[in-house]
Amino acid sequence: MPNTNRQWKLVHRPTSLVTPDVLHLSESPILPVSDGQALARVKYLSIDPTMRVWMADIPQYMPPVQLGEVMRSFGLAEIIESRHPDFKKGDKVSGLTGLQDYVLITGDEKRSFQKVPSIPFLSDTNFLNLLGINGLTAYFGLLEIGKPQSGETLVVSAAAGATGSIAGQLGKNHGCRVVGIAGTDEKCKWIKDDLGFDAAINYKHSDWKEQLTAATPKGVDINFENVGGPIMQAVLDRMNLHGRVALCGLISGYTSGDPSLASFGQVLIKRLRVEGFIILDYASRFREVAEKLGMWKMTGKLKTRETLVKGLEKAPDTINMLFQGDNIGKLILEL
Amino acid sequence: MPNTNRQWKLVHRPTSLVTPDVLHLSESPILPVSDGQALARVKYLSIDPTMRVWMADIPQYMPPVQLGEVMRSFGLAEIIESRHPDFKKGDKVSGLTGLQDYVLITGDEKRSFQKVPSIPFLSDTNFLNLLGINGLTAYFGLLEIGKPQSGETLVVSAAAGATGSIAGQLGKNHGCRVVGIAGTDEKCKWIKDDLGFDAAINYKHSDWKEQLTAATPKGVDINFENVGGPIMQAVLDRMNLHGRVALCGLISGYTSGDPSLASFGQVLIKRLRVEGFIILDYASRFREVAEKLGMWKMTGKLKTRETLVKGLEKAPDTINMLFQGDNIGKLILEL
Repeated sequence: MPNTNRQWKLVHRPTSLVTPDVLHLSESPILPVSDGQALARVKYLSIDPTMRVWMADIPQYMPPVQLGEVMRSFGLAEIIESRHPDFKKGDKVSGLTGLQDYVLITGDEKRSFQKVPSIPFLSDTNFLNLLGINGLTAYFGLLEIGKPQSGETLVVSAAAGATGSIAGQLGKNHGCRVVGIAGTDEKCKWIKDDLGFDAAINYKHSDWKEQLTAATPKGVDINFENVGGPIMQAVLDRMNLHGRVALCGLISGYTSGDPSLASFGQVLIKRLRVEGFIILDYASRFREVAEKLGMWKMTGKLKTRETLVKGLEKAPDTINMLFQGDNIGKLILEL
Repeated sequence: MPNTNRQWKLVHRPTSLVTPDVLHLSESPILPVSDGQALARVKYLSIDPTMRVWMADIPQYMPPVQLGEVMRSFGLAEIIESRHPDFKKGDKVSGLTGLQDYVLITGDEKRSFQKVPSIPFLSDTNFLNLLGINGLTAYFGLLEIGKPQSGETLVVSAAAGATGSIAGQLGKNHGCRVVGIAGTDEKCKWIKDDLGFDAAINYKHSDWKEQLTAATPKGVDINFENVGGPIMQAVLDRMNLHGRVALCGLISGYTSGDPSLASFGQVLIKRLRVEGFIILDYASRFREVAEKLGMWKMTGKLKTRETLVKGLEKAPDTINMLFQGDNIGKLILEL
């Protein structure tokens, strides 16, 4: 039995990249396994952008890692001793192992581990990737939020990453034209030649925005967004009416703390749905709804107020009143 | 019969407010009414923030007004001469009259006019407001996008404006706690005392963000957003998980050209749906989907690639690889 566990503990919160003062590798004794517990040796650790978010003391979807705690991560481990009813020696499990050599499985809900089956053609690491958070994220984000239809155009950013590479392939399998954005020519070659993306754009080339325009001749219907910032903006600029943005990550802001990402950061972390709308789209229902609104007004359920300005010659100043906060209720020019 | 029509024409595109050089009041002769046409005298002009958008040469939901054209606006007019089968003298109509004394109705689709009925308790101006774009916008934005549930908290910005004041009242009628944000104490008093909002916040008071926090003790479930910028950000910061933002306008950016509004501007104008998601929300379906993904891998429909780094001691540098673009596919630390 091993008696020492190496653990990376979070000791300072990072301001940009993970500098040497952020994590500290400490050693601690491995305690005897108690009833209801199991000890597992970590074989693979999943390294994910979200770890950088967990390091920061900001509102997020799980509690931030506390200073002094073992740094949180997903991983795959093999049981080496078990007094837990669900696990036996030799079982492989995946879950939140943390950055350490050994993990004690206690049955604590937050650390729930799944047994990893042995399946032909699937490697252990596939359970951290395709069958783990990356594949699942690509699946739900693209299919449930993006709702791809055959013939639509999908743009994926961080397209050669674990999640983006799967999202793009799922788009191809659903009949989309798929364009990937990545940061090296090698990545672009992989997603285009091996994964079958229709186009791949290296955003480090100076003409990448023109390339994006050329690669999306019918505009963009779905954006599977991992990056944020100028890349997301360029894709938004190409989007078609009623497009969908599955906001999966904003990695460009994780190490910069770019405040311009603040709003979309809230949308991401709180799983908000932000929907733009223009009233003209509802024209076929105007009559029905106007009758309702009129009835509500007549029965006192709705009140209105107007600010009237008299004289066509006052039009320019009256328009400006809107932007200077000078009207209450509806602003009307009376002729 | 009148023989001169005064018309405000767009002659320069504005950069901020509507300065005196932007619109020019010109006179033109009124031509005889031909077969299929009707001439109407404009009685009321609807003055709306969207007019500032129409003045700008930017991509938008209708074509921008061209230089030299009569400035577009909604209005209500009375038919004074008709050779059009649908209208007779004395009829009142609403539609895109433009900023002018008289409008010639030609049957052109883009200028389609609706007859305005005479209904007890409803004034002519109600047809530009409650029964026009403001009421309809409030109705569809709040009910179809916001989907208010009894007991939820709704925050409306520009709450004393034509649209916001109706959206807030609809929220009250659906059982929401409704908080309005406006720019004067008089506006706040109106929406609170007369319209029944639960709270009203004057964003020109220095402690308005603290007031917003105090007024939304259970957070915010729905944001009916008319303003954008720091006001929208403050509301996003208060939003609860799975909240909805009905993005109706971004008036704070219309005259400033603030580039930080660019992204949400696209969301608004293109009626995009942006949805943040966190994979943990789908936990109940992980097994079902992992089986699908595994099958797709085994049948060659999905490919994966991994970048492996060996040694627990490499964890910090490996995390940084994600932000420096140094991995292709899934990044895994092998122990």
